Amino acid sequence: MLEKNETLTQQIAALAEGSYTATSLAKRTLVRATQFAALNAFVSLDESIVMAQAKAATLRREAGKPLSPIDGIPIAVKDNYLTKDYPTTACSNAGPLESSDVDATIVANLRAAGAIILGKTNMHEWAYGATNSTSNIGATYNPHNLAHITGGSSGGSAAAVASGIVAAALGSDTGGSVRIPASACGIYGFKPSYGRASRHGVLPLSWSLDAPGPLANSLEDIEHLLPYLFGRDSKDASTAHAKNYKPAAKVEKPHILNLVGNGLERSDEVDEIVCRALIKADVDCSDYEFSGFGTYFAAWETILHSEASSYHLNLLEKNPAGFSAVTRAHLEAGRKLTAVELLESQKLRAILLQTLSHDLPAWDALVLPTLPVPAPKHGVDWQEFGGRKVTTQDSMTWFCWFANMAGLPSLSIPVGKSQSGLPIGMMLMGKPGRDEELLAIGHLIDRKINGHV
Amino acid sequence: MLEKNETLTQQIAALAEGSYTATSLAKRTLVRATQFAALNAFVSLDESIVMAQAKAATLRREAGKPLSPIDGIPIAVKDNYLTKDYPTTACSNAGPLESSDVDATIVANLRAAGAIILGKTNMHEWAYGATNSTSNIGATYNPHNLAHITGGSSGGSAAAVASGIVAAALGSDTGGSVRIPASACGIYGFKPSYGRASRHGVLPLSWSLDAPGPLANSLEDIEHLLPYLFGRDSKDASTAHAKNYKPAAKVEKPHILNLVGNGLERSDEVDEIVCRALIKADVDCSDYEFSGFGTYFAAWETILHSEASSYHLNLLEKNPAGFSAVTRAHLEAGRKLTAVELLESQKLRAILLQTLSHDLPAWDALVLPTLPVPAPKHGVDWQEFGGRKVTTQDSMTWFCWFANMAGLPSLSIPVGKSQSGLPIGMMLMGKPGRDEELLAIGHLIDRKINGHV
Repeated sequence: MLEKNETLTQQIAALAEGSYTATSLAKRTLVRATQFAALNAFVSLDESIVMAQAKAATLRREAGKPLSPIDGIPIAVKDNYLTKDYPTTACSNAGPLESSDVDATIVANLRAAGAIILGKTNMHEWAYGATNSTSNIGATYNPHNLAHITGGSSGGSAAAVASGIVAAALGSDTGGSVRIPASACGIYGFKPSYGRASRHGVLPLSWSLDAPGPLANSLEDIEHLLPYLFGRDSKDASTAHAKNYKPAAKVEKPHILNLVGNGLERSDEVDEIVCRALIKADVDCSDYEFSGFGTYFAAWETILHSEASSYHLNLLEKNPAGFSAVTRAHLEAGRKLTAVELLESQKLRAILLQTLSHDLPAWDALVLPTLPVPAPKHGVDWQEFGGRKVTTQDSMTWFCWFANMAGLPSLSIPVGKSQSGLPIGMMLMGKPGRDEELLAIGHLIDRKINGHV
Repeated sequence: MLEKNETLTQQIAALAEGSYTATSLAKRTLVRATQFAALNAFVSLDESIVMAQAKAATLRREAGKPLSPIDGIPIAVKDNYLTKDYPTTACSNAGPLESSDVDATIVANLRAAGAIILGKTNMHEWAYGATNSTSNIGATYNPHNLAHITGGSSGGSAAAVASGIVAAALGSDTGGSVRIPASACGIYGFKPSYGRASRHGVLPLSWSLDAPGPLANSLEDIEHLLPYLFGRDSKDASTAHAKNYKPAAKVEKPHILNLVGNGLERSDEVDEIVCRALIKADVDCSDYEFSGFGTYFAAWETILHSEASSYHLNLLEKNPAGFSAVTRAHLEAGRKLTAVELLESQKLRAILLQTLSHDLPAWDALVLPTLPVPAPKHGVDWQEFGGRKVTTQDSMTWFCWFANMAGLPSLSIPVGKSQSGLPIGMMLMGKPGRDEELLAIGHLIDRKINGHV
């Protein structure tokens, strides 16, 4: 079943043509959620909430007045997005928001378009980790092989899409949390440029790195959602200059830099699959030896830990036992970072931006594997690849953090499978604010590799 | 002599009319600098450098081709502005720049207009203090009474203007360093909005608070200089949206808020003089009880110390003995601040901006005394006023830091003298980016109080 999930595009057409109703789609979705309960993809899912929305959508279609093409389509939402109907817990016992008076801006936009907020998905506690193994409802399980993790922190959203429960879901990405589980679960994940999509109502991990983003079964499906994500939101100052979504023209022969060098190691298997995909994609691609990757990584970590500890400061003092031991340890460690260390890291961020703008040869996209290894097994704490031995956590963010540090739009595309049958993803990064151009490059490559339109 | 200094406006007219030449003005300036050597206003002043510039200016006038109205006029420059001809030491033994290949952007602008960079003025070491008592060439002395300090950190520039050596000088202001010595020395000082004037080539104290600004004998004189300060500079990203100088229309009846409350105490004498001036100014003024002043002050200090320690990190490790003991102690203390403390302070900064925009009643300018006390005596470490006992350092920045924390343009105008004959200044603050409107309000008040045109 995993290979033939219905796409959002197909659901849009089916509802428009009347092949089925929002009510029957919702019923089918609930059945499938039950069938795949072993994935542990959902933290909140309420049949009555879902069916009330679905019936209203069906009535609108019957009256010939759908609110939008996605009216009546179920969307799963990561449990760090505020929602009026469901509680928002960030899968932590520390400070669950049992209820909220507001929807996150993106949730509100989808709701206004008639989309059904199906339920809230399992996530790495407070998004502070990339394995989805740390959650107050337990880990998520990879639909391709339950012995393996989904990666995270948007692991529940990825599992819900990859298993075909929903055609699309929302995640958030601070160091790869959309792209990592998308890659590990064999679907498409997109992190917009920083400041392009509203973070209002998405509980922060690190406000200068966080970006909300969609997960889906095709690039076209992702693009169906972007009108509801992109654009200025008066409640999020970082979107002050955000443009609305506007599809880019097709691209002809983009120049792509393949980043290599110290700190950019990957397993032979992943390297081979991604290289083969690049050859098949027939793009103008050259290697670029990128220096200082490890230094920038340390700076990303400092910014992340500082901001996370700042955001959680009150809760950490009020209810330390509510956090898992590992999350609490991160937060306590973050409090020990100095202001000077943070400022030095912020300066490195500015230097990285200058490097990308001025020092690299001309490029349209940067390419890397999304992950250096296929989805790890549950309970395995270390990964070895390319002469490195790193924690499973670090292996997940290994490449992905780079786009957050630089605010770049970034995409994960499935490009093959490991010998053990686990999905492998390719990551593309574009220029800040030029999300649509990156997606156009993604389409070009995806058509060649996966035959998608 | 202190009361009748020649203004920049008068010098512009005299040179234009040919009443005297740039050469004779430069000679007179050098003589006067020698007469007032006891002020210790200059750290670098070289007759041959000055006279070469003056002779070139005279030749241009004789050829009927002056570069600008200020061609040939001597300007004194604080020793933290990079200058090609003079060394730049920031009055520290830690890391003097014996020479520089570049002029600070503002210095370059003035030079291109034919102004004579007279010499470099004494300052508080690295601008890290507001008394001008800590300097590797010794303290500066107040022209109104040598037993008193000038305040700082642009104390040398203030002394040079107040004594009539030059008609105008450049300073920099991170928590009042232009306005404090202007007030203490009975002249006019102006700190532009953050990001309006280029900081390129001005050695930083705290890059998110620093602003370069002029000191002079009248508001008109300050305005003569602003075309050379304001506007976009590709070498300083903070000026990306900076507008060029454009005089505002006269204002009629501005509404001014007089800030009062806890943390806003001042001596009875200063309060009386400033109140009397406000009455004489006949403006629409009402008291506003401002809460949280002390909290914002602590946040300003955290930002300042963090950024200063970050900037000086390498030098502090390489040459700790080069700093004065007190500056070194500040820098070491700044290294102990945590990243979370800095982030909390940055959040308070955002809250302060929101408060000023949304919570206050409508206002055109905010008013406070520039200093809560007249210029303190040399060697006195504590000041008592309004039931407070604070360090002389804190009494200098007492009100001034507020404009830096919020990025507001701010002006100090002399409004009277203490019983002991020391100048008292009034501080006005305007809205960010609306520097010219603040200056127009300043003119209105100045005309009524001081009879200036």
